[in-house]
Amino acid sequence: MSESRIDIDKLQLLITRGPFNRWLDFRILKSDEDGLELTAKWREEWVVNPDRRYTHGGILAAIVDTAADYAIAAELGRPVPTIDLRVDFHKAAMPGDLTAKARVVRMGSQYSTAEAHVYDKEGTLVASGRGTYFTAAPRS
Amino acid sequence: MSESRIDIDKLQLLITRGPFNRWLDFRILKSDEDGLELTAKWREEWVVNPDRRYTHGGILAAIVDTAADYAIAAELGRPVPTIDLRVDFHKAAMPGDLTAKARVVRMGSQYSTAEAHVYDKEGTLVASGRGTYFTAAPRS
Amino acid sequence: MSESRIDIDKLQLLITRGPFNRWLDFRILKSDEDGLELTAKWREEWVVNPDRRYTHGGILAAIVDTAADYAIAAELGRPVPTIDLRVDFHKAAMPGDLTAKARVVRMGSQYSTAEAHVYDKEGTLVASGRGTYFTAAPRS
Amino acid sequence: MSESRIDIDKLQLLITRGPFNRWLDFRILKSDEDGLELTAKWREEWVVNPDRRYTHGGILAAIVDTAADYAIAAELGRPVPTIDLRVDFHKAAMPGDLTAKARVVRMGSQYSTAEAHVYDKEGTLVASGRGTYFTAAPRS
Repeated sequence: MSESRIDIDKLQLLITRGPFNRWLDFRILKSDEDGLELTAKWREEWVVNPDRRYTHGGILAAIVDTAADYAIAAELGRPVPTIDLRVDFHKAAMPGDLTAKARVVRMGSQYSTAEAHVYDKEGTLVASGRGTYFTAAPRS
Repeated sequence: MSESRIDIDKLQLLITRGPFNRWLDFRILKSDEDGLELTAKWREEWVVNPDRRYTHGGILAAIVDTAADYAIAAELGRPVPTIDLRVDFHKAAMPGDLTAKARVVRMGSQYSTAEAHVYDKEGTLVASGRGTYFTAAPRS
Repeated sequence: MSESRIDIDKLQLLITRGPFNRWLDFRILKSDEDGLELTAKWREEWVVNPDRRYTHGGILAAIVDTAADYAIAAELGRPVPTIDLRVDFHKAAMPGDLTAKARVVRMGSQYSTAEAHVYDKEGTLVASGRGTYFTAAPRS
Repeated sequence: MSESRIDIDKLQLLITRGPFNRWLDFRILKSDEDGLELTAKWREEWVVNPDRRYTHGGILAAIVDTAADYAIAAELGRPVPTIDLRVDFHKAAMPGDLTAKARVVRMGSQYSTAEAHVYDKEGTLVASGRGTYFTAAPRS
């Protein structure tokens, strides 16, 4: 499948089209047979707890979902609808950019599974999860 | 447990403390034995697909998580850490405010389960899900 | 959709066809617009912990999956493939028959969501969960 | 942590204590820093669809749950209660023994995440998933 993989520049263009993706300021760092890597740039609005200042779980869920989706997009050439998502929160994510590593668990003709792990700037795993994505060919 | 439930004004103060909750502009509409109801106010940054203009799944995940968490907060007096979250995406959520109805599935001494359903402005179910929350008493 | 619902006797015939369903000895108790109710008959092999004698989580997962699947089958006329499943374990399930109440959360043309709650013989909730099911029309 | 890992023989004794684990005839094949590997022996009662003869999803869920649990048990010295479980079904599992590879995603003091992948006798991935486990020290 490697010949049909789309390149990082095209993935970056695709991801940047979405206003929420721009708000999260996703940058695709890497995309190869082992999967996809991207970062999201921290912003003050991510905080859920003003005293301890950690990031809202919804932000981590959005990063898991998007990274897993783009691991599929790298193979299919387009992002796909998420059917469902599971996210595990391992540790409070403190202020700082976050990096996600994602890979396809199983590509299917109708629906597919992909997973992502999210790391803080020290490289500590803060969240991980997996989603089911709708990968049937678009009706023309 | 009804006597210990905290009132809507206190829940609103708690939820408004978090910058991301303010960005989502959560309003608690109702809280009683049947559960909790809140709205989030649509903003342009929610969009993931600029052509079809539907909302990013991460926003829906954040609403499911927060509504389920505050259904627990209404009983415990404080929001609690999310251990893990599952979200099902039923239908594209088009521009417009979203309403979530949440309830506790089972309250435990160590961890608890709560669920939420998210509706668009026409009242159509767009997403639903459930989370496991860490409800052990805080160490003093 | 009520006119197309299939009746309990037909559902019972369908569920009894499967060897594992027979091993769990499922009985359909009820099926109407509110959903489906079934029981599974306890057997010694369900036990995971020989000292405390509670039921293996895999048995509870099988009951959640089957009940949710048959809530869909009651509308579609056939059980459907499970895409993915989430189960929450609320309480140790002690020896005794278990009852599940299931309902469709959202029926879709390609995939659908259904949920189930499992109760012990005292009526206490011991597990609950939801699955995504593949409900596209079979290719002829 | 390697010095405190318990050996395969002790894990085998622990797993064999449970009647449902005996019914699934689990054999621990390997346990080291990379995780745990076990097999379950096919039996006719696993079948859900008598025509196509594939295995019930509840069996696959039980294998994912048990393998992930014992990846934790290898470090803690005891199996632990499952809080919740997610399983993705990738492909119909046809008659034949199944092998699971499991690993700890993140070990915590209160709750932990572990995952497992299940393969058929041809080595094809048929299911995978992850669970949250209650790993607080037992109250003495």
